[in-house]
Amino acid sequence: MKVVIVGGAGLIGGAIAKELGARHEIVVVGRKSGTVQMDTTDAASIKAGFQRIGKFDALVSAAGNVKFAPLANLAAADYEFGLKDKVMGQVNLVLIGRDFANDGGSFTLTSGVLAHDPIVAGSSASMTNGALDSFVRAAAIELPRGLRINVVSPTVLTESMKDYGPFFRGFKPVPASVVALAYSKSVEGAQTGQVYQVL
Amino acid sequence: MKVVIVGGAGLIGGAIAKELGARHEIVVVGRKSGTVQMDTTDAASIKAGFQRIGKFDALVSAAGNVKFAPLANLAAADYEFGLKDKVMGQVNLVLIGRDFANDGGSFTLTSGVLAHDPIVAGSSASMTNGALDSFVRAAAIELPRGLRINVVSPTVLTESMKDYGPFFRGFKPVPASVVALAYSKSVEGAQTGQVYQVL
Repeated sequence: MKVVIVGGAGLIGGAIAKELGARHEIVVVGRKSGTVQMDTTDAASIKAGFQRIGKFDALVSAAGNVKFAPLANLAAADYEFGLKDKVMGQVNLVLIGRDFANDGGSFTLTSGVLAHDPIVAGSSASMTNGALDSFVRAAAIELPRGLRINVVSPTVLTESMKDYGPFFRGFKPVPASVVALAYSKSVEGAQTGQVYQVL
Repeated sequence: MKVVIVGGAGLIGGAIAKELGARHEIVVVGRKSGTVQMDTTDAASIKAGFQRIGKFDALVSAAGNVKFAPLANLAAADYEFGLKDKVMGQVNLVLIGRDFANDGGSFTLTSGVLAHDPIVAGSSASMTNGALDSFVRAAAIELPRGLRINVVSPTVLTESMKDYGPFFRGFKPVPASVVALAYSKSVEGAQTGQVYQVL
């Protein structure tokens, strides 16, 4: 399979590339790094990237940013940033990428544990993750040509605990290599409309 | 209690006004109807509305629009419309309204069944509903002064089946008067961070 990994130079993306790279052709896409560059908030940039990549069998997205701050300090624009970047950035990859996906291909997006298990300062992340989980459930029943779509919803990464540990007290962290298995299940399995929680 | 019902002239809003109006002072807010007008996509309009209303004990929102269309026909702008109107419109009511809420007051938003039980042509609604459910879970743990926040997630209304029946085959509709009970539970109860599903 030809597998496009958007955010492939990141912590999760790198682990996915390692997991899937053992068996498949990988194209790493980054905002500034990678073989191909895409700004996922810009439709023209995404389209140009896919035109360079050509047809693919699986698109994995581990890209998207949100602002973490106490509820009291989050303005409407901060929530809108997350909706534009993490939600619509990944949805844009599906809306534009579907024309480049081979029949039976798959899309695998990334949400996160905060959709259902919130932390202080994480309300924007919760909002974006919930939007993605529900979008994927819905999009799955309408994609044509046997195309599939799933989302991986990981808890905090072991590798991130040195930076984010104080925000995630009581959460059991999971190594990126274990989170990567859920993307393998999505890409190399046959289910659609799934929210793969990695807890 | 003084209860502000945004969207209070609508089908659900009217049923909430009837249910809560038996026991509480109601202020009906509409985009064009009601005692006070607010455009929930415009922060200045919301602020002006709350300044007219003054302090309140409960804010109920049954307002918000999304586009229903097949996935193949939905563009990024269509999803962005729903995020701006139904998600950020209601979130704006919380972000701005919290300064007008009395200690121990409550916010009750509206999402919907499609967050977890999708239909064809409903992927934007699913996305917005999922965003709202997760936002409420997160915001609840950070609101100050004993403020509470919940969301009601109703299935299709009995009164709507004549228009939307073909989209909701197999769904058991619920009368607006029954959906209104969930808002009563939120406003007159004491829980926070709840997604009250009315199925």
